[in-house]
Amino acid sequence: MSAAGEFDLIDLIKRLTQGPSARVEVGIGDDAAVIRAGSGKQLLCSDCMVEGVHFDLTMMSPADVAYKALATCLSDIAAMGGTPIAVVLSLALPKEKANEKFVTAFCKGIEKLRADLLPVQFDFVGGDLSSSPGPIFIDVACTGETARPILRSGAKPGDQLAVSGWPGTSAAGLYGMQNWKTIKELSGALTQAHTRPLPRFDLSQKLDSETCHALIDVSDGLASEANHLAKASNVKIEIIQEKIPSHERIQALADRTNQSALDWALFGGEDYELLACFSADAQIPDGFTLIGRVLETGATGPAVTLVKPNGEKTPLGPGGFNHFAPKPPASEQI
Amino acid sequence: MSAAGEFDLIDLIKRLTQGPSARVEVGIGDDAAVIRAGSGKQLLCSDCMVEGVHFDLTMMSPADVAYKALATCLSDIAAMGGTPIAVVLSLALPKEKANEKFVTAFCKGIEKLRADLLPVQFDFVGGDLSSSPGPIFIDVACTGETARPILRSGAKPGDQLAVSGWPGTSAAGLYGMQNWKTIKELSGALTQAHTRPLPRFDLSQKLDSETCHALIDVSDGLASEANHLAKASNVKIEIIQEKIPSHERIQALADRTNQSALDWALFGGEDYELLACFSADAQIPDGFTLIGRVLETGATGPAVTLVKPNGEKTPLGPGGFNHFAPKPPASEQI
Repeated sequence: MSAAGEFDLIDLIKRLTQGPSARVEVGIGDDAAVIRAGSGKQLLCSDCMVEGVHFDLTMMSPADVAYKALATCLSDIAAMGGTPIAVVLSLALPKEKANEKFVTAFCKGIEKLRADLLPVQFDFVGGDLSSSPGPIFIDVACTGETARPILRSGAKPGDQLAVSGWPGTSAAGLYGMQNWKTIKELSGALTQAHTRPLPRFDLSQKLDSETCHALIDVSDGLASEANHLAKASNVKIEIIQEKIPSHERIQALADRTNQSALDWALFGGEDYELLACFSADAQIPDGFTLIGRVLETGATGPAVTLVKPNGEKTPLGPGGFNHFAPKPPASEQI
Repeated sequence: MSAAGEFDLIDLIKRLTQGPSARVEVGIGDDAAVIRAGSGKQLLCSDCMVEGVHFDLTMMSPADVAYKALATCLSDIAAMGGTPIAVVLSLALPKEKANEKFVTAFCKGIEKLRADLLPVQFDFVGGDLSSSPGPIFIDVACTGETARPILRSGAKPGDQLAVSGWPGTSAAGLYGMQNWKTIKELSGALTQAHTRPLPRFDLSQKLDSETCHALIDVSDGLASEANHLAKASNVKIEIIQEKIPSHERIQALADRTNQSALDWALFGGEDYELLACFSADAQIPDGFTLIGRVLETGATGPAVTLVKPNGEKTPLGPGGFNHFAPKPPASEQI
């Protein structure tokens, strides 16, 4: 497989399976599917986490793993401008983990997320439990609802591009944990961004679909998500490098370790922050930082351009995680 | 863990996580969750399949695996008396399987199931694709709808117990495939029951919740499912051994190989047939065979009793698959 293997396979799956019926408004290809139900719209999505790919129990506790597995999936509901309803969780455990101690710790992660998300609530209503001959597998599926979903495909030329929080925080936290022996000092805020990301319902639920034209969560890094937005909306996007927010904690760690905070933000992923396109005249809501703009689609040129501090423009490919290329891991929606 | 480990863990999960909110009619513990949505009721369930636990690619093709993964989950919707709406599928593949050939074959299984299920339809609307450092992992989550769900918990004393099809067919097919070298001759109907089970919407959609009081699908064998029904409904159940249907093909294979067709039916599982409780005066619908009855709950005695051909009564424990006991594999709903 080429480096594009993962997205090629998703395209292949989309091509080889029957397209959605009339009641499906959005099928394969956005953060969550949108299905017409009565007078409202139902959302459905799933996200899996595999031990040794998405997490390592030497760095994350069973509670962290449960927290993050649910958070990752719920974030897709936030990224549609939706409200979660119910969650099912499938868990395949190797025999040595199928004990009260592991399961108790795991459940604590579910309950902690529930507490952290309040006042947003979800119901944990079932799932499947299996043994695994190898790693731990977790899959979470979530339903949600929304009156007006905010899709990836709604970006319009002239829109302002904004991101919430500090993208790259999760990657900085992961780097710090992986290099703990030499770093020795690491902010808990960085590790927590990696181990216990909180879906941004606090922001998404205030978004107005009139002014917020497109929305996606940053699971694979800013570069990858900007490319997804551009492709889905058939527009071009320009990101101003100097405007990408970077918390001083991230910059300090990058400086100390000779890493690039910019690379963490662009290619790190797993932040579960929101990347949004707001109409040209809209005020950027609190919690978001303006980082670029949506341009007219030209016949040629890259989907996403990075404007460097010296004014030089460079194409910004997805570059984020790709499951079947030799790169760090994350999930990708079918 | 004791042999009861799997169900102990599910009880533990249920105890340690917050119970469902008011809008959830059925949470952890039935074939699918039931969530009030507008004037109707939404169903949600998930089922996972793990390579080396639920399937073996020397016996099942990638198309079989996809077919069965979806069928298993959809069967839970049938077992609630529901109609499927949308499916999401998460797939974790080792790198050597992440290629066009495997994914194309896999998608053919999805489309074949879709064709076989007609006129019942479902939409395949997304999911997640990941790499796996070990076995293939598949999780399917499905939503459905129903005006009046038929639960496990509705069995009433006096009810007639009936099962669809020929339970044990899947186990016979699996045994035949596992012992192919010595058997050499095997009915395709038996292997197909194991590799491509078809959810019984043809029967479930004709059931009337007035006369069909309780419903469950046979994923873990008749014995296990009868125990689930008895426990959930707080009743006792009597199964008449001689009435358990066994197709001549199954009996012939059992005779030839010195196996027990009865054990296949009671403990084999993965049939995805329906086990139903009908009111005492109801006519048993076509496709179902009367195999026993629901008794008053006594203070003592087993939940399920098997009446042998000589009239002797013997307690019938679940005995089906338990993921953390040294037994053959299957799934169990959280």
